[in-house]
Amino acid sequence: MKAALYSSIISANIKTTQQINTMSKPNAFYAQSGGVTAVINASACGVIQAARENKNKIGKLYAGKNGIIGALQEELIDTGKESAKTIAALKYTPAGAFGSCRYKLKSLDENRREYERLIEVFKAHNIGYFFYNGGGDSADTCLKVSQLSENMGYPIQAIHIPKTVDNDLPFTDNCPGFGSVAKYVAVSTREASLDVASMCETSTKVFILEVMGRHAGWIAAASGLAADREGEPPHIILFPEIPFNQQKFLNKVRSTVKKNGYCVIVASEGAQYKDGTLLSASSGADAFGHKQLGGVAPFLATLVKEELGYKYHYALADYLQRAARHIASTTDVEQAYAVGRAAVEYALQGKNSVMVSIQRKNTKRYGWQLGEAPLHKVANVEKKMPRSFITRDGYNITGQARQYLAPLIQGEDYPPYKNGVPEVAVLKGQMAPKKLKTRFRL
Amino acid sequence: MKAALYSSIISANIKTTQQINTMSKPNAFYAQSGGVTAVINASACGVIQAARENKNKIGKLYAGKNGIIGALQEELIDTGKESAKTIAALKYTPAGAFGSCRYKLKSLDENRREYERLIEVFKAHNIGYFFYNGGGDSADTCLKVSQLSENMGYPIQAIHIPKTVDNDLPFTDNCPGFGSVAKYVAVSTREASLDVASMCETSTKVFILEVMGRHAGWIAAASGLAADREGEPPHIILFPEIPFNQQKFLNKVRSTVKKNGYCVIVASEGAQYKDGTLLSASSGADAFGHKQLGGVAPFLATLVKEELGYKYHYALADYLQRAARHIASTTDVEQAYAVGRAAVEYALQGKNSVMVSIQRKNTKRYGWQLGEAPLHKVANVEKKMPRSFITRDGYNITGQARQYLAPLIQGEDYPPYKNGVPEVAVLKGQMAPKKLKTRFRL
Repeated sequence: MKAALYSSIISANIKTTQQINTMSKPNAFYAQSGGVTAVINASACGVIQAARENKNKIGKLYAGKNGIIGALQEELIDTGKESAKTIAALKYTPAGAFGSCRYKLKSLDENRREYERLIEVFKAHNIGYFFYNGGGDSADTCLKVSQLSENMGYPIQAIHIPKTVDNDLPFTDNCPGFGSVAKYVAVSTREASLDVASMCETSTKVFILEVMGRHAGWIAAASGLAADREGEPPHIILFPEIPFNQQKFLNKVRSTVKKNGYCVIVASEGAQYKDGTLLSASSGADAFGHKQLGGVAPFLATLVKEELGYKYHYALADYLQRAARHIASTTDVEQAYAVGRAAVEYALQGKNSVMVSIQRKNTKRYGWQLGEAPLHKVANVEKKMPRSFITRDGYNITGQARQYLAPLIQGEDYPPYKNGVPEVAVLKGQMAPKKLKTRFRL
Repeated sequence: MKAALYSSIISANIKTTQQINTMSKPNAFYAQSGGVTAVINASACGVIQAARENKNKIGKLYAGKNGIIGALQEELIDTGKESAKTIAALKYTPAGAFGSCRYKLKSLDENRREYERLIEVFKAHNIGYFFYNGGGDSADTCLKVSQLSENMGYPIQAIHIPKTVDNDLPFTDNCPGFGSVAKYVAVSTREASLDVASMCETSTKVFILEVMGRHAGWIAAASGLAADREGEPPHIILFPEIPFNQQKFLNKVRSTVKKNGYCVIVASEGAQYKDGTLLSASSGADAFGHKQLGGVAPFLATLVKEELGYKYHYALADYLQRAARHIASTTDVEQAYAVGRAAVEYALQGKNSVMVSIQRKNTKRYGWQLGEAPLHKVANVEKKMPRSFITRDGYNITGQARQYLAPLIQGEDYPPYKNGVPEVAVLKGQMAPKKLKTRFRL
């Protein structure tokens, strides 16, 4: 009854597929979603360049300002106003040039208002293609948009472009964004380990690097690539997948310091106890007496100091790791660009409700090709580290993990520099004129 | 009376200048001291290569294992055993390849035992040249060693090779090691700022990067180079030189967020109140209820959250910044190498008790040449940021600072990579056979 009511309201407001398609060639909408990466703009570059090469089939390409919010609020950046040079510069510009957001569409039943608004905006701007660049949550949003045709009679093709430093999307060998953060973490771990090694006689004995990864230990795992040989740092990697055992950890730290003179630890922010309690939740009170979250490294550092007496240092890479375009992996940049291009090609082939995927070729030398995965299978699924990628003691990566990870950090795709700092794309960001009178409140 | 007694003991044990010089050409001793940098090994490379080019005048070149401790404990790495290729690789290897230490010689009166031991070791290994690679404290050690001739009759020439990320040595335009950390901080600030800018609509509004600099704000200042134009991030830089005013700071954060949607703060670890209390001392208790030091960033973050309600993120670059050879500045690498070479040349010219200095040429285009400064003037003096380098409001750098800093981060001296991570020199580290029966306890 309720659904039928809505349905009639909508059908009164929108034209049918046929009507729209005969109006003119459809425009396209692209948006960046969720935590940004060093290479998400390379995907944007791929989308925009591919769309420009298909001007006979795609009209304008709008980018949502701040992701899907831009669609809801009719804030559409007209990418056609940007020069070819600026678009090319996106390939080496980190973070989300069009703005990103953390905003997940609710289900149709929970918040139909959002879907109606999307259709209103899409219709007003003749949007027939929807490209959404994000991780697991965003895949869910993309899935919901892809179902607008079916559920609400609005004709649209939605293609998901994978992106997440967390590398936790299923049905793809890896996720664009991960390779570069992995390279940053491997490089930084190697460099910082040399620092600690050279000072340990009279100074710091334990160094902890805290990296991203709330639920999956992929980023922490990449630090293992810093070691050429067994026994080289990092000596201990803490994965969310392996329950933290305090006594075992302390024993390992002590024996490592006794053997090498120092111990390098890389900890996932999501490192946790068996019961799921995060280690970071155990950190002390802040300056205002509040329980302070977000500190696996300080927690481990004080634990080590308290129980073993070693001098420590720790680093929190935080946004530095996922923004580190200056040391992006060539593999990653190429894949990020390719999945962006492919999204446009898939759409033009008539596909809908799929994610572009990366498939590893079954060859001795690393090779990859693009594929696709149905969005309803991708959305809201997290791919964790397989147990076979983690050593038996739970503190390092296996040869199998190394084989998987190593190709993803190959090559240094350096950006151009000006005055000693990386050049970045500076967008005009010109908005398409608004066509709707109504405003949308989030 | 006491001095005369020591003097006779020593003279009985050591030969005079003439005796040693006729024995054979003197050997040389090199050591790394204090906190390591991305380019201190480039200085080592310069010393070793210059010594090898002067084999007719310099015998063996020993490197102290872990700095001056290697001399005291007669742990001398025979650099002659390393291949030319390995020595060349030092130029792109971060941290201290021979080991460094935090160990300051006491005064002659306070701990004569140390000086007697040094002379004993130097004599046993026919050391006539002493090259010490470090910062302010190390300059003091080098000064004391340089006075061994005068005070204790042992002939030695001591040359100090400047090194410190803190850039706080006087009588030199800048310090090798600083340019690379400055570049790392400028690059990271630019990258992370783009990240924050793209997410601020629905996520983090305030980002804080904590950088090194206990007493001088040079490193924090370098973050200012991330901005091409006024108003670009970083929006607030906290220098140890400018007393922290909480209300003024909060007002600035609020107005910046209101204007730009976000605020990027770079804070020196040495940021402090007017009375000299460190902000980091205000952090809360750790997991064990102890007062926790070393957290300007978490302190500021909780302050901002508490008083203004903004979502925050913060990063602690810690060792990552000073080890970041992967993004070293070309100017810095060249200067680090040059001061190493010059130390050998100065010694062969008969100089003693000087530090190699870098002098900026008075030309429109940046140029530099080497000079020297007397060690007794250098030791224990800290060069702070001039007030004219800091904007009137105390929160950013001036054009004058920019003019000084910019040339130091020019050029990207990339290391070679293997398997996706930087290659580094792997030393044999073969020790010279010990000649003394006695051991020295620190």
